[in-house]
Amino acid sequence: MTSSTDADPGDLPTFAHVLAAADRLKGHAVLTPLLESSAINKRLGFRLLVKAEPLQRTGSFKFRGAFNRLVQLDEAARKRGVVAFSSGNHAQGVAAAAEMLGMPATIVMPADAPAIKLANTRGYGATVVTYDRHTEDREAITARIAEAQGATIVRPYDEREIMAGQGTAGLEIIEQAAARGITIDAMAANSSGGGLIAGCALAFAARSPATRLYCAEPAGFDDHARSLVAGTRLRNVAGAYSICDALLGAIPGQLTFEINRRHLAGGLVASDTEAKRAMAVAFNDLKLVIEPGGAIALAAALEGRFPGNPRTIAVIASGGNVDAAVFREALAA
Amino acid sequence: MTSSTDADPGDLPTFAHVLAAADRLKGHAVLTPLLESSAINKRLGFRLLVKAEPLQRTGSFKFRGAFNRLVQLDEAARKRGVVAFSSGNHAQGVAAAAEMLGMPATIVMPADAPAIKLANTRGYGATVVTYDRHTEDREAITARIAEAQGATIVRPYDEREIMAGQGTAGLEIIEQAAARGITIDAMAANSSGGGLIAGCALAFAARSPATRLYCAEPAGFDDHARSLVAGTRLRNVAGAYSICDALLGAIPGQLTFEINRRHLAGGLVASDTEAKRAMAVAFNDLKLVIEPGGAIALAAALEGRFPGNPRTIAVIASGGNVDAAVFREALAA
Repeated sequence: MTSSTDADPGDLPTFAHVLAAADRLKGHAVLTPLLESSAINKRLGFRLLVKAEPLQRTGSFKFRGAFNRLVQLDEAARKRGVVAFSSGNHAQGVAAAAEMLGMPATIVMPADAPAIKLANTRGYGATVVTYDRHTEDREAITARIAEAQGATIVRPYDEREIMAGQGTAGLEIIEQAAARGITIDAMAANSSGGGLIAGCALAFAARSPATRLYCAEPAGFDDHARSLVAGTRLRNVAGAYSICDALLGAIPGQLTFEINRRHLAGGLVASDTEAKRAMAVAFNDLKLVIEPGGAIALAAALEGRFPGNPRTIAVIASGGNVDAAVFREALAA
Repeated sequence: MTSSTDADPGDLPTFAHVLAAADRLKGHAVLTPLLESSAINKRLGFRLLVKAEPLQRTGSFKFRGAFNRLVQLDEAARKRGVVAFSSGNHAQGVAAAAEMLGMPATIVMPADAPAIKLANTRGYGATVVTYDRHTEDREAITARIAEAQGATIVRPYDEREIMAGQGTAGLEIIEQAAARGITIDAMAANSSGGGLIAGCALAFAARSPATRLYCAEPAGFDDHARSLVAGTRLRNVAGAYSICDALLGAIPGQLTFEINRRHLAGGLVASDTEAKRAMAVAFNDLKLVIEPGGAIALAAALEGRFPGNPRTIAVIASGGNVDAAVFREALAA
């Protein structure tokens, strides 16, 4: 048994799954603030809302999906534990959720992941197994560990309950904006596998259907943007480089793309330089620490890249797990 | 007329004033999150809650008092506008509140205030008048402007409605902790004039009387700590230096000290080096940008300086308006 019995990865989530996830996360996840800066709004000429997921447990939205998935495992599965592969944020989300639920976790991480992500994952009590991104197959390593330990594999995005959990961030945005009387014209979330924007799309389709939704990706890794245009999943060209370590997925997820191609208006792209500029803006005007891969949707908004001049834009700052050296460099740029 | 008619600065605030301020601030101030990091808690061996006032409008708690004061001015006083002196955070608070309420604001600021604080104050539409901290008297300059324009002087701490406004941060801490079933054993807030901890003390005395309360100050500027021991207001020795530009007040406020000497258990002190270390911890584990003078209470907690080994400590990170160069230096330390 390498996967749990109560969640068939072949199932697509619905809005009902997002609502159920929100109930499960209540009191466990942080209700992160929807930040706004009058200085930013003045400069841009439109209203910008920033969902501050760096303030989420583990420093990224990934805790939402991980906890929603793990809390549904039965006692026997909990004892055997979980195994996941991740460049860092999913790793921390799974490790922290496992620790809270008292189950063992093994995380397969690239040896060159940011030091802060490796250290934090170990800090949550997980066993970290490193591999060489260029020569080794992380899925094969994960499968071997799952088989040896009878552990449940927790995929980073292509699972119903993972997507449903991430969608709670979108649900909160809608509720927080509504409480302030705000209508959101456009919304974007950073995309690697596409689970965050897919989950959010379910929430917006149900509760704010007029909002135009976008995924956001670093230049050179715009597989979602191109796939949405083509109507079929396209792979990134090998050999590209970006400092956005959280957004280097090779191809959109199978399940996430099924949702995203129905709901998204398109994909937005920003460069590493623009991501660093967005990190500096978040430092100055929001007092929020954002990692490069957490800042692409914000960068797209700051660079005026949303089509049709929307008057109110919401973006998710998806994570803040950045090494001090990289952050210092962004502030110096 | 240089002061409004509806708030006599000679009055001490009560808890009722804090409650009224909370009503006035609803929908105008940010309900800032009470952050927590399991990594920090593990390292410290006690539970630490951090009230994230850098996420407040204008990047510090000062907006609370300023808005609460300004919103009570009558139409005639609003037209004549307000004038304030401040090293930066009160300046921004008053400027932003004045802008929201459509009234002119003049702010008297030291010429060597952090560039970000000068720029932001102007960004909120205020007229900034700079002075030399070593040779000029800011109160005299402020009085001259008030007289010439008929503007209301908004003092940084020694006013009833300013203290009441700042106290809403403490009220929120109590409510946010209670919602999570948490009892707070000890609490500290950074003190320059002492308005923040005074307002908070009123809230804690009414709603969480068992919590032991402390002010927190940078080394060399521990006038509150020494005054509490002496039972009378003592001045800082001239010539001290600290990077905590927000906490360089010379002597406790007259009104704030009346409250603080009744309610505080004592004063905590941390060094500039410890403040920088606290800023780095907030970056790594909370993803929050804190300025040096906003990090002293946090530093005191991280350095284990609270007496009696409290099991749960709440501190206010009071501001995040720090220049990039200073922040980069803190991360490099």
